[in-house]
Parts: sequence; structure tokens; C-alpha cells
Amino acid sequence: MSQRDEREGRILYEGAKFDILLKTIEGRSGAKTEKPYIHHPGAVVLIPETSHGGLILIENRRFAVEETILEVPAGTLHWGEDPVEAAHRELEEETGWRASTLVPVMTYFSAPAFTNEVMHVFLAQDLQRGVLNLDDDEEIRVVEFSREQADSLLTDGKVKDGKTLLALALWKNLRED
Amino acid sequence: MSQRDEREGRILYEGAKFDILLKTIEGRSGAKTEKPYIHHPGAVVLIPETSHGGLILIENRRFAVEETILEVPAGTLHWGEDPVEAAHRELEEETGWRASTLVPVMTYFSAPAFTNEVMHVFLAQDLQRGVLNLDDDEEIRVVEFSREQADSLLTDGKVKDGKTLLALALWKNLRED
Repeated sequence: MSQRDEREGRILYEGAKFDILLKTIEGRSGAKTEKPYIHHPGAVVLIPETSHGGLILIENRRFAVEETILEVPAGTLHWGEDPVEAAHRELEEETGWRASTLVPVMTYFSAPAFTNEVMHVFLAQDLQRGVLNLDDDEEIRVVEFSREQADSLLTDGKVKDGKTLLALALWKNLRED
Repeated sequence: MSQRDEREGRILYEGAKFDILLKTIEGRSGAKTEKPYIHHPGAVVLIPETSHGGLILIENRRFAVEETILEVPAGTLHWGEDPVEAAHRELEEETGWRASTLVPVMTYFSAPAFTNEVMHVFLAQDLQRGVLNLDDDEEIRVVEFSREQADSLLTDGKVKDGKTLLALALWKNLRED
């Protein structure tokens, strides 16, 4: 998990969620170049399992790809925030469900070619109704899938989001262990 | 696959590989904010399968995360480049192996919260010796894994890179079908 003041390089952009910097890199020849990277506080990814063994996903409008895509609930950490706290917050805000149980599954780098963003994946269980609370710029619809439907999403082409595909694979793997 | 001139918004950075733009987004309330995104030509991801059924990976120095991490070979498309051509190129340059067979496995968005980068995943088979050809700023070591070793990488914590974890899961899935 990065802290905001650990950023290195020339500031290109300072944002509400993350910053963008230009860092000087020395090649094997000694030649120097500047490369941009997103300095990121990290994010949480939820695998919300219903009491029937199904999965809760969201249809999420994404301006960067100009599409509404099917995703697991997820969200950016506040700088320095505990991932468990963020996971509880994002799950409730984006789906209207609260989890009594959060099991850490994995942490990984989302796109190490250009960001230090770390993804913290949690299995969310024992769900109870909470309060949906979307940000002004969020357009989200909550969708529930049965276990069979969810498992087929890994290969049927309906999911285009990398973190969601990996979450589906990890969830299947957890149940096979 | 995006073209370079399809970018939208205010230019923050123009790079050799990708650009960064600020796009104006209107929230549900009508309020407008500017958000940054990486306008990206897309990337290829290789699953190089050896004649013994093993897997070729690379240890790759990543400045953005300040670590050397275990990854599948991958690389950025040139703007407008055919993904199949890029896949052949990147596999040989990064691993010194050439593939006679490339099977398209999947395409997905790497990080749709802040980039339109599309990942094109290929299974690379019928490998022959080619010529390793690293860029000046690349520090890469090629490592071969047996099938058993590769399958355990999905859960043993040795792989921290999202695209590699997903590639490992997809490869396992392909063989189970």
C-alpha cells in the first residue's frame, strides 16, 4: 500500500483519488528517460457471495472505455486507509449489501507497467441489507447471478474487466480447494 | 483497439507508448469534473507453452512498483498494429522464442477505471529458438516452469502481477475444457 508522500519524480497531475508523476529511469546503456506512472493508494475488490452461493456483480459505467461493463464491486482506498475498512465501505456503497465476514483472498498489482496500484481481494460473506450510496459520478446497477451463471462468466465473453475475470477465477479456485 | 487520434479531452502527456488526457465527465447531478485517463493502443499477453507442456515466464524489472516481478511475456502495441504481429514480436524480443502457433484466448480491459488499454491474450505453441532483443530500458530474465510448478503459481503468492495471474487461470481452464 503506497502512501501519498512516497511518490517519486516530477508531478504531472494531482487528483482526488491518485497522482500522476514522471520518473527518471536509467537504461542499461546509462541513457536516461522520463516515464509516467500513476501513484495510487491501492484498491479493494469484493467477491460478494450470497446465502444461496450466488454472486453479486454490478453494471458500471466507465468513462475511460466509454462502456457499461459487468464488474465485481471495487473501489479506491483513501490514502493510508485500512483495506478492510475500505472493503466494507465500498461493498455497501456500491451494492447496498453489508458483509459480516470478509476473507482476504489475494493482493496483486493491477498494471505494473504504469501504476503501483495494489488490489486487495476479499471474499464477502454473510450479507445483510445495507444502504446503497453512489457518488455523483457513479452509474451502477446491481445484478445477482447464480453460482452456475457466475462460473460461466469466466469464459462466455460477457465480462471484459480484468479484475472481475481474475476474481471469478479465484472464487472458483477457492471452492475447488 | 484504440487509435491515437480517437483520444478525447485535454492532453496532459504525450508519450512514446501512450498518452494521458483529462476528460470532462458530467455526474448525475449535472456537475462537471475533469478526470485523467491513459489513452492506450492496447497490449498483447502471451502464454508460451513449451513442447513439454511447461510455461515460459520472465522476471521483469518494473520501475512503477520498484520490484522485479514474475510475469508472462507481454508488450504494448504500436498505434494501429495488428495484435497477432505484436504478439509474435514481443514473444521473440522478450524471451528469445518464436511461436509457430498463436491461438487467441481472450481480450479484456486491464484497468477500466483509468485506462482504455485492451489486453489481447494468446496461447503461444510450437516454440522454436529465435533472437532475444531487449529494449535499453528492459531488464528481463527468462525462466521456464513445469506444468505442475506453473499451476501452483496461481495461489502460492509468487506471482504478484494481475495479467499473469489471469493468464495462469485461463491456461488452466483451457486444459480442463
